[in-house]
Amino acid sequence: MRTHQVVLQWIEEQLSSGQLRVGGRLPAERALAEQLGVSRTSVREAIRILEALGVVRAGVGSGPDAGTVVISDPTAALGSALRLHVATAHLPVADIVQTRVLLESWAAARARPGSPALAEAATLLEQMEGCEATEEFLALDVRFHLALADAAGNAVVSAMMGSLRESIQDYAGRLTGNLPDWAATAARLREEHRGILAAITGHDGAAAARLVAEHIEGYYAEAGLGGSA
Amino acid sequence: MRTHQVVLQWIEEQLSSGQLRVGGRLPAERALAEQLGVSRTSVREAIRILEALGVVRAGVGSGPDAGTVVISDPTAALGSALRLHVATAHLPVADIVQTRVLLESWAAARARPGSPALAEAATLLEQMEGCEATEEFLALDVRFHLALADAAGNAVVSAMMGSLRESIQDYAGRLTGNLPDWAATAARLREEHRGILAAITGHDGAAAARLVAEHIEGYYAEAGLGGSA
Repeated sequence: MRTHQVVLQWIEEQLSSGQLRVGGRLPAERALAEQLGVSRTSVREAIRILEALGVVRAGVGSGPDAGTVVISDPTAALGSALRLHVATAHLPVADIVQTRVLLESWAAARARPGSPALAEAATLLEQMEGCEATEEFLALDVRFHLALADAAGNAVVSAMMGSLRESIQDYAGRLTGNLPDWAATAARLREEHRGILAAITGHDGAAAARLVAEHIEGYYAEAGLGGSA
Repeated sequence: MRTHQVVLQWIEEQLSSGQLRVGGRLPAERALAEQLGVSRTSVREAIRILEALGVVRAGVGSGPDAGTVVISDPTAALGSALRLHVATAHLPVADIVQTRVLLESWAAARARPGSPALAEAATLLEQMEGCEATEEFLALDVRFHLALADAAGNAVVSAMMGSLRESIQDYAGRLTGNLPDWAATAARLREEHRGILAAITGHDGAAAARLVAEHIEGYYAEAGLGGSA
């Protein structure tokens, strides 16, 4: 095992055993290096990896906010990983879109009408009403879909769905350039969003699942993703 | 942007533009550091992160195999990330099992009877017939389920499913200790596997999806995962 992996394994054991929890701090670099008998370089490499995986936020400077804090942000980590594998052309964009449809229709069918995430989705819809700027609209759109997924109450599905969105965010943004009339598309997306939300609040999960699948597939078809990717 | 992120961004751009492809090699550390105006430490940190994300394999020693090669192994990377987030208790095991059921029943419904992955699944079933050792059986079991997922032909679903399995592999192994009679469980799992494969080869995707969901849920229920996780 390489020395930075010794550090990773130690931290994973501390997390599994509950010795280290979200919000807790790692020992200082020097102390950790001495304790595990490795170089400070190896400790720093391990911390960089954990940052990239969304497991810690490395502190800067001194004072009460210094030090490396345990967080849990799997969405960002999985998103970067997927984005890089899309870049290596190992993961086709068409497969990402299909997986989005799978996860989002599952979540729409199970979204709980009483969930706070659903109230947030309704607020986001209102904000989208008056929004003309493409980039701002798309950002609200992402948050709306994430809120719907959260309303289903499965943290793994939420993290995976968020990471899929993040992995193709730049790609999706560029696709808007293919649309013949953004204002017309935005109006249609708003209407479809209202329909999905109405199906969920009306306890019709099957309709919500079908509508969200049509909504996602329709957008990519209009923007010219087609079967190619 | 921190200096190791400059290196990450440069590599991602090289991948996106096709300048760097799977099987290709990164420039030597020293050359990359000079080109980007950063320290060799920063280059090494970026490479460690890319290794952890399954995007490169760092070479050791000298000769034709030296240097850092671009690979694409999203499954291992996502698996480590999910495992760490399970360790931080952010992702409940019950949610992972539910997501497995979602992805695997989707894949079973779409597995193509003529796919080479399905022939591999059949071979793995034969190997499981004579297999008494728990650990070896479980390893074959994982490969059988991955082969079924591959037969659906979506690289993102395969990678996600593999990563879910990997993230709870230790956990699933420990669960076998809760089973009252491993030989009886193994016999039942073998029979269920045969039923799933028969449904797929008989072009009955709906039955295959239902059987694989019952198979996964039944195993965790017997092993005492229950609703707690």
